[in-house]
Amino acid sequence: MTKDSESKESKNSKPGITIKKDDNFSEWYNQVILEQGAQLCDLRYGVQGFVVYRPWGYKLIKKLYDLLEEALENDNHEPFLFPVVIPEENLKKEEEHAGFTPEVFWVTEAGNQKIEKKLALRPTGETQLYPMYSLWIRSHKDLPFKKYQSRIMCYRNDMATRPFIRGREFCFFESHDVFQSHQDALSQIKTDMHIMDDVVWKKLFVPFTFFQRPKWDKFLGANDTYASDTLLPDGKRLQISSTHDLGQNFAKVFNVTFIDEDSKTKYGYQTCFGPGIIRIIAGIIAIHGDDKGLILPSSITPVEAVIVPIFFTDKKEENKKIDAYCKELQKKVSKAVYDDALDETPGFKYNKWELKGVPLRLEIGPKEVQEKTVTIARRADRKKITVKQAELSHAIQEQLKENDLAIQKKAEEYFKNNTKETKEFSDLKKMLAKHKGFIKVPWCSTEMDGKDCAEKLKAETQGATVCGEPYNQKEKASGKCIICQKTAKHLVYIAKTY
Amino acid sequence: MTKDSESKESKNSKPGITIKKDDNFSEWYNQVILEQGAQLCDLRYGVQGFVVYRPWGYKLIKKLYDLLEEALENDNHEPFLFPVVIPEENLKKEEEHAGFTPEVFWVTEAGNQKIEKKLALRPTGETQLYPMYSLWIRSHKDLPFKKYQSRIMCYRNDMATRPFIRGREFCFFESHDVFQSHQDALSQIKTDMHIMDDVVWKKLFVPFTFFQRPKWDKFLGANDTYASDTLLPDGKRLQISSTHDLGQNFAKVFNVTFIDEDSKTKYGYQTCFGPGIIRIIAGIIAIHGDDKGLILPSSITPVEAVIVPIFFTDKKEENKKIDAYCKELQKKVSKAVYDDALDETPGFKYNKWELKGVPLRLEIGPKEVQEKTVTIARRADRKKITVKQAELSHAIQEQLKENDLAIQKKAEEYFKNNTKETKEFSDLKKMLAKHKGFIKVPWCSTEMDGKDCAEKLKAETQGATVCGEPYNQKEKASGKCIICQKTAKHLVYIAKTY
Repeated sequence: MTKDSESKESKNSKPGITIKKDDNFSEWYNQVILEQGAQLCDLRYGVQGFVVYRPWGYKLIKKLYDLLEEALENDNHEPFLFPVVIPEENLKKEEEHAGFTPEVFWVTEAGNQKIEKKLALRPTGETQLYPMYSLWIRSHKDLPFKKYQSRIMCYRNDMATRPFIRGREFCFFESHDVFQSHQDALSQIKTDMHIMDDVVWKKLFVPFTFFQRPKWDKFLGANDTYASDTLLPDGKRLQISSTHDLGQNFAKVFNVTFIDEDSKTKYGYQTCFGPGIIRIIAGIIAIHGDDKGLILPSSITPVEAVIVPIFFTDKKEENKKIDAYCKELQKKVSKAVYDDALDETPGFKYNKWELKGVPLRLEIGPKEVQEKTVTIARRADRKKITVKQAELSHAIQEQLKENDLAIQKKAEEYFKNNTKETKEFSDLKKMLAKHKGFIKVPWCSTEMDGKDCAEKLKAETQGATVCGEPYNQKEKASGKCIICQKTAKHLVYIAKTY
Repeated sequence: MTKDSESKESKNSKPGITIKKDDNFSEWYNQVILEQGAQLCDLRYGVQGFVVYRPWGYKLIKKLYDLLEEALENDNHEPFLFPVVIPEENLKKEEEHAGFTPEVFWVTEAGNQKIEKKLALRPTGETQLYPMYSLWIRSHKDLPFKKYQSRIMCYRNDMATRPFIRGREFCFFESHDVFQSHQDALSQIKTDMHIMDDVVWKKLFVPFTFFQRPKWDKFLGANDTYASDTLLPDGKRLQISSTHDLGQNFAKVFNVTFIDEDSKTKYGYQTCFGPGIIRIIAGIIAIHGDDKGLILPSSITPVEAVIVPIFFTDKKEENKKIDAYCKELQKKVSKAVYDDALDETPGFKYNKWELKGVPLRLEIGPKEVQEKTVTIARRADRKKITVKQAELSHAIQEQLKENDLAIQKKAEEYFKNNTKETKEFSDLKKMLAKHKGFIKVPWCSTEMDGKDCAEKLKAETQGATVCGEPYNQKEKASGKCIICQKTAKHLVYIAKTY
């Protein structure tokens, strides 16, 4: 995928995608999200890696936030909001754990003056939250302590920026929990995985696999990191969430303690969960979309159906009837848009709304008016059905479900058989050039002593990485590490990576 | 009101307000919002003017955002999201208009490196939005162009920070519209005022007056500024919204043009509207609250009713029945919390939830269980009523309305007769020391030639300012300017100001 750059199009460039997804995924992706596509974002803001989210794109982000907020609140999390800046001393206290400081943006001036203590733009929440947790949590009665921040931004000076995949500023969502026992913390990690499954797979149909990351790829301050990876159509994995088992590591640094039932003061056990907002959107764009544009699941689309009248330039009376009928229909369907523009052809309108991924199109011509019917076209599988007007509300719900099923089926198809297997490094290299997905290989160790092999793998394969072992599906290894030939203790998944 | 500082309380400080609102409003306000009060925010984050919003406070903010988003979307605004940083050149291009640069925070470093072009933390949106508007708006068909940003933060290096009143980081909401004609723009300004009336007065019962600001107090880049002021109980006015008639000023600087129906390229007419998120919350806290704590309208409260069981330590069987009855009730009331803690007395619970401003309390003792009734206590006017269990859902809705009516009535009472009148400066000075509200006086000019008088007023009254003339209620002036004794052209309102 190419870096973010939006050509300085003239003000009159026509909408539409000119490249097929299978021919050049990277260029297709850029076209779909930018000016000539669904206009999800704009890269002409003038600061690399800082993206402007346009209404259609921001509505998707907003809806994803709503779905996650609802899921977290159902799991007894409460929202709060912290400043965007973090004092340098907090970050330094934690440098050995998080190691973000080389990527941090610093606020150093106010007006024409240097400020006394420079402030970091939040790279992630831990070091800003936990000093306050230390003040707020007093007793075991305050536990579990489950909070989240939503609709916030984080900042990292990442050089390789790509819209919805990597940004210097990126949409963030994080929950941070404290528990009485490690057992409780581990149970929350499972719950976080269920939330990913419920929201991202079952509602948005973005498929993924959960991995336990090798120790060299875990979050530095964590005992273990559990992360989910989807695959984009170019075959690279994209991490779309992570949950960290922080143990008592941060609790000890930031003094997050509680008085337990036995009156003793103890450190809390902490977890944090971060679904990757923009990357989940990237998954929806890249996996569901086709040569016509976006394809949106019903749970995230800003518009469920567009009503397109089939006007004829020479039939004014008939057009009036069509217009009146369409207006009647719109009243009955709450999330429908009536596209009544007179200076665009029906075909132009079809393309426009297909580009945006709207699930259903209601086509209304003279026949529909006369027979009091509605022709409904589904975006995902391009099937059409004609229903009676009286049955419209019910039919819309049915057709949305059918459209969702088509998306889900395609995503299932896309994600299955994504894993190949080999025991030979030479073979692995060949497979990495062709296979779009994971490759399962024997590996010496997922502890720190396996890191050298991971570095060799990366160097000799233009960037393939070890995803880890699939969570809850660890298989027994046999044979020798594909790199160092020592006894293999693990069967790990390898993939090219964003 | 004192500056923001939260004492380092011990972890075991008791909740509760120890100061009466009428005795010391400033101290009462701090107590209500901080640790010993409703815990809306926390000032111990370590960076002055950067506040942590705790769950109860953030839920209020979130709900206010929801109400405003809904109102703006009903008025055909679409959401978008811009980066938090603004390139220096954008800000400089517009310096003559906005004049924010002395207050701007600058990002100058990334990691250990200076960045090439320093970036401002957004002080307000104009200079970041309009260069993109210039790219997006092409034709009269794109107008009106109505967008908003919500749940974003703005930054100004303000020295006098007070929670919910002034912050260096503050919750922001802004709509920015472009129109074909000045007439359309003026009509939008009226709509913005209606939105303030619908949301802030009719739903939240925060009273205010709309003023047309004198020219020396308008937004620098605007032709005119229309702003609403409420009054806090210490008698100072607090601006809680502003709408600017930007004319074509910014359009000319940032080249926001469109091709009109006559095929000529023209500059758009712009308006922007900014309700003050945290300040509207400050109005709710300060105006509705009483010596027991917050009082929340039903449209913003996170919890509509709390169910408090009246347990007796020696009656285990009876307590079980009460507990079962309460659980049954909770199922019937969707936004109710059942406070079943065993180690707190009913009185303690009453105080706790009154502090948080929850509209209704459902008291359940042996009598209620036996008679299958519920005793409902209203927070705002402290009245009680007992209803049959079967009528509970309906009764809750009724009692929420009654509670709202009590809040509204009190706010009306509070805001009426807030304006006195005088023609003598000596008299005005005496009134400013006592009168909690506006004072109407004859004034030479609300154009720039009246500025000297405004400065003299401010200097000789410890900070009283000219609010302007009430929008749509301008009265004919007579006599002489209260300061310079020239012929008075206006009757303006004077008040002490936050």
